Amino acid sequence: MSTIAAQLTVELADRRYPIIIGNHLSADGLLLDDMIPQRDLLLVSNTTVAPLYAETLTAALAPRRVVRVDLPDGESYKTLVTVQRILDVLVTNRFGRDALVVALGGGVVGDMAGFAAACYQRGVAYLQVPTSLLAQVDSSVGGKTGVNHPGGKNLIGAFHQPVGVLADTSTLATLPDRELRAGLAEVIKYGLIIDAGFFGWLEQNLDALLARDAAALAYAIHRSCQTKAQIVARDEREQGERALLNLGHTFGHAIEAATSYQTWLHGEAVATGMLMAAQMSARLGWCPAPQVERLARLLERAGLPTNATGLGAAELRALMQIDKKVAAGHVRLILLKDIGAAVLTGDYPEAALAATLSASTA
Amino acid sequence: MSTIAAQLTVELADRRYPIIIGNHLSADGLLLDDMIPQRDLLLVSNTTVAPLYAETLTAALAPRRVVRVDLPDGESYKTLVTVQRILDVLVTNRFGRDALVVALGGGVVGDMAGFAAACYQRGVAYLQVPTSLLAQVDSSVGGKTGVNHPGGKNLIGAFHQPVGVLADTSTLATLPDRELRAGLAEVIKYGLIIDAGFFGWLEQNLDALLARDAAALAYAIHRSCQTKAQIVARDEREQGERALLNLGHTFGHAIEAATSYQTWLHGEAVATGMLMAAQMSARLGWCPAPQVERLARLLERAGLPTNATGLGAAELRALMQIDKKVAAGHVRLILLKDIGAAVLTGDYPEAALAATLSASTA
Repeated sequence: MSTIAAQLTVELADRRYPIIIGNHLSADGLLLDDMIPQRDLLLVSNTTVAPLYAETLTAALAPRRVVRVDLPDGESYKTLVTVQRILDVLVTNRFGRDALVVALGGGVVGDMAGFAAACYQRGVAYLQVPTSLLAQVDSSVGGKTGVNHPGGKNLIGAFHQPVGVLADTSTLATLPDRELRAGLAEVIKYGLIIDAGFFGWLEQNLDALLARDAAALAYAIHRSCQTKAQIVARDEREQGERALLNLGHTFGHAIEAATSYQTWLHGEAVATGMLMAAQMSARLGWCPAPQVERLARLLERAGLPTNATGLGAAELRALMQIDKKVAAGHVRLILLKDIGAAVLTGDYPEAALAATLSASTA
Repeated sequence: MSTIAAQLTVELADRRYPIIIGNHLSADGLLLDDMIPQRDLLLVSNTTVAPLYAETLTAALAPRRVVRVDLPDGESYKTLVTVQRILDVLVTNRFGRDALVVALGGGVVGDMAGFAAACYQRGVAYLQVPTSLLAQVDSSVGGKTGVNHPGGKNLIGAFHQPVGVLADTSTLATLPDRELRAGLAEVIKYGLIIDAGFFGWLEQNLDALLARDAAALAYAIHRSCQTKAQIVARDEREQGERALLNLGHTFGHAIEAATSYQTWLHGEAVATGMLMAAQMSARLGWCPAPQVERLARLLERAGLPTNATGLGAAELRALMQIDKKVAAGHVRLILLKDIGAAVLTGDYPEAALAATLSASTA
């Protein structure tokens, strides 16, 4: 039996789409019929998730013809070569411009399936069925799709909005602990950026989340998606406010690139990156030190890394230079005035950044 | 000395951009300063065009830093692998989201440079400087970008509008005769679709065009771009009317795919494809036979192929099935009610299509 815990709408300039959060949603054929038209589709998953959930979803999609492609699992496969494989399957099976792509998996699957949908025949529809906490609270919402380049994270991609997001919280049951924790980093991010009350709620309820309490998870996903949907609605193409959602990501992407996307999970790199941003903000006298301490404690309790010991400060600094927020050669960063008050700024002394990187990698 | 022959504007829902047609425009630094900001840029060209025009354009762009990548020449290189090369150069040179890509070349260069711009950091600006007649009258205008897949033409791509189009007619001086003729196929197309008066003008002025009379060429380019700009303004994403611009292309793409993009120029395949569409229209009793004869005569005078002798009718039919206009498995075609009156339709007996293909390949 499926249960809908919450439903939201992402309002865009020219259309809208639903985010539905609840239990066993991907087994609910009637719900799927409501969301997508009855037609042939390509189901994109990976070799870890597909054995767990692809059969149930395929049954719920009957009587549609479902072609499936299972990608290798992991951020290191998030490349143009893997996307080409999805495109090959679309061509080989003669999908038309009315094709529908369904992404069943975590952020990597969703980013690549969405990018393939963006490029196939100059754009076909896709549905997100995120199965990781990180994908449910962040990457499946908002239409950012793409792949990594050896020179930097997510450097190749497209803005392409899904027709809907189906966050089936029952799939979190099989999520490895480490990935649950990585997802919590993005949840904490929403509190830090704009929602001090939610940050306080997370401090109160972190143990319940780590114990996978269903109600706590559904609430955290709902509140995270709500914030993301609001920001995306106001700034779909990241001309301004949406950049705040990248808190910790410029640091984090550099950590991921420095370790070839093999060692750190994205959420882990973001956790350390958010703390770096907070530490740099404190160094600049912008954010009170006790607030930085609160963040460090929460990340530690969540089992997330809080420093980049062993990496090279100079290498990280160089990798930050390729970030998408660079303007006229200068790296802009999301920094904190307080918990719940992030700002995008290029107005900082280089020495403060260098000192922050040195301290974290020491 | 540069001379502007005509200036048009493509009006889109959320912005507009200019098409400027004239002589020696790509040597005009002041004009370039008007169109694009003073910033570093990537100049994408190919090994044929770059030796002829890249130096002049680069000088006109001074004092900007110009990074250049010269692609191999030819439709067979219009692949994701070649686009990846452009993306690599963008990353290696640390271009930011404020990057500008300039496409100097024919349709293949423009399509790939535009697609790389669409994908790099989820979309950066690009300027079209088309140097072939086909690119000046068609592919550089309207924001269709992309590459071929072994399974079909332009199957991978994006809608991504340029910041402007600079059609420098002086570059046509070095265009091989065969390519000039291929470009005329797309010019003739505009007359056939919607502009019977222009078709009559072409019958009167074809010899002047083949002799590269500057005034005749400028007029043909202007009138072609005018029609294209109007149709794109009304239907940017090809939800309806814009599909008419594909007259002859479903047949033509099948011819190109059947010959691995190696034998026929795109315009040549479109020429034969347009005649096939006209012949099929006559077979259905839609278009008067004398009008089909007028088209055949004009194409012959332009030195363009008018049949696909030697190719397999069944293979062409199969390749047409992957066309982007396929809806619910059925191939929709652009057919003619008359010269100047094209329609998009799926309402035809399969036998008429089969007979048309058989007759043309016999």
